[in-house]
Amino acid sequence: MIGDNGHETAIITSDDVAAILGSVGRDRLMDEMIAGLETALATCEEDAAIPTRDGFVVGGARAGLLEWMPVLRDGAAMVKMVSYSPDNPQVGLPTITATISKFDAATGHLIAIADGVVATALRTGAASAVASRVLALPDSATVGLVGCGAQAVTQLHALSRAFPLRRALVHDVAPDAAASFADRVAFLGLDVRVAPLAQVEAEADILVTATSVAEGGGPVIDGSGLRPHVHVNAVGSDLTGKIELPRALLLRSLVCPDHRPQAVREGECQQLEPDQIGPSLPEVVRRAAELAAWRGRTTVFDSTGFALEDQVAMDILLGHARELGLGASLPLEYLPGDPKNPYSAPRPRAAAPRRLAGGAG
Amino acid sequence: MIGDNGHETAIITSDDVAAILGSVGRDRLMDEMIAGLETALATCEEDAAIPTRDGFVVGGARAGLLEWMPVLRDGAAMVKMVSYSPDNPQVGLPTITATISKFDAATGHLIAIADGVVATALRTGAASAVASRVLALPDSATVGLVGCGAQAVTQLHALSRAFPLRRALVHDVAPDAAASFADRVAFLGLDVRVAPLAQVEAEADILVTATSVAEGGGPVIDGSGLRPHVHVNAVGSDLTGKIELPRALLLRSLVCPDHRPQAVREGECQQLEPDQIGPSLPEVVRRAAELAAWRGRTTVFDSTGFALEDQVAMDILLGHARELGLGASLPLEYLPGDPKNPYSAPRPRAAAPRRLAGGAG
Repeated sequence: MIGDNGHETAIITSDDVAAILGSVGRDRLMDEMIAGLETALATCEEDAAIPTRDGFVVGGARAGLLEWMPVLRDGAAMVKMVSYSPDNPQVGLPTITATISKFDAATGHLIAIADGVVATALRTGAASAVASRVLALPDSATVGLVGCGAQAVTQLHALSRAFPLRRALVHDVAPDAAASFADRVAFLGLDVRVAPLAQVEAEADILVTATSVAEGGGPVIDGSGLRPHVHVNAVGSDLTGKIELPRALLLRSLVCPDHRPQAVREGECQQLEPDQIGPSLPEVVRRAAELAAWRGRTTVFDSTGFALEDQVAMDILLGHARELGLGASLPLEYLPGDPKNPYSAPRPRAAAPRRLAGGAG
Repeated sequence: MIGDNGHETAIITSDDVAAILGSVGRDRLMDEMIAGLETALATCEEDAAIPTRDGFVVGGARAGLLEWMPVLRDGAAMVKMVSYSPDNPQVGLPTITATISKFDAATGHLIAIADGVVATALRTGAASAVASRVLALPDSATVGLVGCGAQAVTQLHALSRAFPLRRALVHDVAPDAAASFADRVAFLGLDVRVAPLAQVEAEADILVTATSVAEGGGPVIDGSGLRPHVHVNAVGSDLTGKIELPRALLLRSLVCPDHRPQAVREGECQQLEPDQIGPSLPEVVRRAAELAAWRGRTTVFDSTGFALEDQVAMDILLGHARELGLGASLPLEYLPGDPKNPYSAPRPRAAAPRRLAGGAG
């Protein structure tokens, strides 16, 4: 494990994540995310150690969020700090920025902190792939995308790893976002076309909504002209009052939230009564064989994003950082030589600042 | 402000904190903490932006905590991740480990992350000094300390900056902790003596309880033989069920919590009905002139520790780091060159990794 440098903290920067992407490749990374998430979902314990995320509503022109997403599992605690700032792209920053911190639950030591921007995009895509693999037709060939921002890239990428996709029909209220999408996913080799919303809805086997619609501004699709077997991944909702799907669609579908208490507060499930909500993602994975009966009918994955997904992503990134010898190791916490005296000099370090040893541990 | 290195993150390590302590000096640092905290308390808005901390209960032989403490104030968000691990000193680690992260609320960018161990000790001491300055007799000369761990050092230090102290009477259930205390606070030039608990209680003008007593194991003092004017700073409580003071003492005292909703859950205020709880620390500071009438009577500061204190400490540390040219600056967050494409190469950095520029910004 990273963290075997005594009590230093591994810092996995943007450069390290770029090196992992370059060295491991996004396909293998995404495959690992999907497989790792499926395993974690199948084996995770009750939701008690995954509290509903909490945060501050912060305001620019449009409401944003700054949230903390903690998880405690198998003796390892992780907290993702994530912001949703819909005006960020106007200043060249991603809508979602994030860092992930991993702790030794026994001592409280911060084992590692890493970029969470790429992890968030990867795991959100992977979650849709996991849900879709159970609930969508295995021969799904056409993905419809409503909202063509950063998350749409990894949504389509993840689905392409799980389905024999041939084409994507894409729509965005911002024409330039739709127009630039084909270039951004050129590496997938799919037929990607901008299309009117009605056509996207009419032809999709799997539909993804990943928008920055404002609270009260949804739904973002009409929902009346969908294919009877469509599976919808609604990934954009993350604010109370923000919804992407029409209630009528939810009422005729099997709606599976990722993390029920969170989805009830900020996902599509805001629009439903408790008995109208289907099994949550861990249960979907565990009951995959049984739920496959829904593949010919309309299903919805209500994806709000939850900390278990981030823990999986963090551990995959840390594993590659260690293998590749990436990441700085710094004595972040002041560990007094005398633990009973905060003014005593820090305990001696094992060595000078260095890159993480490759392969060790 | 630190954070003017484009969108990099300032990393303030243990070495940087040691350099600040060495260069600025602990006396000036503590004075800045006390003054900064008084100003923040006098001007802070309603408690809405300082949620009660939350966390995981984690278990070693004795229950520990891993908590997140967020605050949003004046457009700056801060989260302290802090652990309380009472068995840590047995492996040479401090009972309380912590890091503090500061965010730009508008964009979600992580401006800085710093050690929080020293900040926690400093601010907890400073909070007691602030409360004591209003509620204790100005000529208080004798401090009684029950519990002689790391927090006791900064408690006595902070009080020594606010009162004409002459001596400290100290007690700990672990004899070695009591015996080593005088050496740890030798820099204060006080008469420090280990004493029986009854004597500590009987002679203190200001009494501090800072123990790791287990839930259900309190109270840690008898409370019947205290001086009539005693002011008690109860700083150890941080777990539901953990208390340090006898209820009878609370009932005859003016009890001032630092952060009322938190103190009701994990502080001495657990033992009180709502109408038995006095003004909270921000109000104590604002009503200092009026509340000085309580100096001749028994008063209690119920200190659970709250995020406003950490924000003050963080900003003081960051200010010194900038002035002294300390702290690494790293591109922690992956900021894609195309914000709509998480797989695009990171945007170019302004410069190579470097120390923070001194004096600038």
